[in-house]
Amino acid sequence: MLPAIAWKKEAVVMVDQRLLPWKERYLSLKTVEQVARAIEGMVIRGAPAIGIAAAYGLTLGIRSLKSETELEKEFNKFYRRLWQTRPTARNLFWALERMRRVFEENKSRKLSELKAILLAEARAIEKEDLAINRKIGENGESLIPEGATILTHCNAGALATAGYGTALGVIRAAFARKKKIRVLACETRPFLQGARLTVWELARDRIPVILITDNMAGWLMRRGEINLVIVGADRIARNGDTANKIGTYSLALLAREHGLPFYVAAPLSTFDFSLRSGRDITIEERRPEEVRKIRGQLITLPDVPVKNPAFDVTPARLVSAIITEKGVIRPPFSSAIKQIRNQP
Amino acid sequence: MLPAIAWKKEAVVMVDQRLLPWKERYLSLKTVEQVARAIEGMVIRGAPAIGIAAAYGLTLGIRSLKSETELEKEFNKFYRRLWQTRPTARNLFWALERMRRVFEENKSRKLSELKAILLAEARAIEKEDLAINRKIGENGESLIPEGATILTHCNAGALATAGYGTALGVIRAAFARKKKIRVLACETRPFLQGARLTVWELARDRIPVILITDNMAGWLMRRGEINLVIVGADRIARNGDTANKIGTYSLALLAREHGLPFYVAAPLSTFDFSLRSGRDITIEERRPEEVRKIRGQLITLPDVPVKNPAFDVTPARLVSAIITEKGVIRPPFSSAIKQIRNQP
Repeated sequence: MLPAIAWKKEAVVMVDQRLLPWKERYLSLKTVEQVARAIEGMVIRGAPAIGIAAAYGLTLGIRSLKSETELEKEFNKFYRRLWQTRPTARNLFWALERMRRVFEENKSRKLSELKAILLAEARAIEKEDLAINRKIGENGESLIPEGATILTHCNAGALATAGYGTALGVIRAAFARKKKIRVLACETRPFLQGARLTVWELARDRIPVILITDNMAGWLMRRGEINLVIVGADRIARNGDTANKIGTYSLALLAREHGLPFYVAAPLSTFDFSLRSGRDITIEERRPEEVRKIRGQLITLPDVPVKNPAFDVTPARLVSAIITEKGVIRPPFSSAIKQIRNQP
Repeated sequence: MLPAIAWKKEAVVMVDQRLLPWKERYLSLKTVEQVARAIEGMVIRGAPAIGIAAAYGLTLGIRSLKSETELEKEFNKFYRRLWQTRPTARNLFWALERMRRVFEENKSRKLSELKAILLAEARAIEKEDLAINRKIGENGESLIPEGATILTHCNAGALATAGYGTALGVIRAAFARKKKIRVLACETRPFLQGARLTVWELARDRIPVILITDNMAGWLMRRGEINLVIVGADRIARNGDTANKIGTYSLALLAREHGLPFYVAAPLSTFDFSLRSGRDITIEERRPEEVRKIRGQLITLPDVPVKNPAFDVTPARLVSAIITEKGVIRPPFSSAIKQIRNQP
């Protein structure tokens, strides 16, 4: 599988995730505006992948400049445009801030040098993310018992990252160790990331996957057909409260009710150390059409009012462990997160 | 609105619920086989409506006979065909058993008389169901507070019954009393009864309705945007355990977690007094295509394995009250159900 995102010949290339699994179409984006719209329109999604896209987007912007004239103003314009694409995923802001630091340190250099440095930084963000995911997989795979049926929600896989995935990275690592596991993928309405992306990714890797509708999870837990839940994250507060795809909170509650472990797999770039708790996380409300339509077809009356919160927040008390590249964090999360943050 | 089902000129007429809300197409069914297939294929669905359809189906069968030759054998053939259409909804078996009793009592009469008597019985089942639903509404409406936002799942409305509905009957009764209420309808994958049928029914009655995906319910409860849950039922055991559309069990757990009342509205014909608990309820597993496709379009890979249990069982301990035509039953359910059963 090609990665979800890559830099190629002065362009950001990404597979159009709106069309998967039916069409594998690659878009070659050459402007900040194109990248911003790709993020907004969910051509690319998944917190780490959005961060990488934003870093490359900023790079495209700077590389389009012909001279240093109003360099700082131009940078800020690109930065703001990308900053405003989506509000919840921490990695977007983390990547932009990281790019800004490098910009600030190098803005007085020759423009050609600055361009090269920013591209190198964006490439580093991408490359590191892949390495981080492999590490997350390595750190988390021991939590997956032999023979387990694993429930996952949305897509926290290769398509949501630079590759390998976070939650699916852990699953891939367990599978690579020859554990006989299988995955139940929640279809994840409204955008169907589970049905479209997770099923596609896992099928390509020949990891056994079964599709269910989101409302089946509780009943399958009750029937004893699920052993654990693992999901990715869009933003994690200092106390371990975790924003992730809408429906995650319900799964966490259902898991606790049935005595099942509920794991979150995420890189440190998903942690928002400025937030005391999940109460302060902004939840994106997306267009009603995403709920009213599936693959362009109405599934209800055209004008029915709709709610469409794209994420929810799972309180830390429902999380059994958070799997990061620096190790597995267990409750109490506040102190564990502080510790891991300061760890080299 | 025309009723979901009616007897007209030697035919059972029903609106094709697979096509709502886009097309209001009425099918005129004239044979047992046509009615059986309509039930199996979900042209008509909803426990009480299925029962009525089966009663009329049996009537069609007997009315097609030219003579008393092998009357009993013919009756049994029709009966078995209808009996095998769907396994979970109690009302199907209740209606067939009721028709059998009338058949047994009258089978030695002239065939023309028997035909008239069976038609009258099927009509009575339909008419009584409508009256029962109005009574359920009357009995339950006091449970709906002024200003409430009510979550419902699937469609327990006019389309699921002879008219008015069970869960939606309670909502209709509260609305008729000028209570300012609004309904959150879970879309109810895979068959989308909420998005297609409940939204349509409520919009026609100008009862405010908002559509959500099934996985949003927990988060909206947490945000304080839901005051109570009310659903219908497909089968209720002697202890109050309730089979209903897949996803109901999760909603009941989520309601309890958030301190919200969880109500079931159902006629006594939905109770299975032969079952000690919900453990003995057969849960129908339907075709994988229902999960893989929406409106005929694939939403995933064409060959991905799927689970498709059409119902789940909510344990009685999660049910706040069951609203019946004979009154509102509260825990402990076992004794309350025994009492109401024997009540005239």
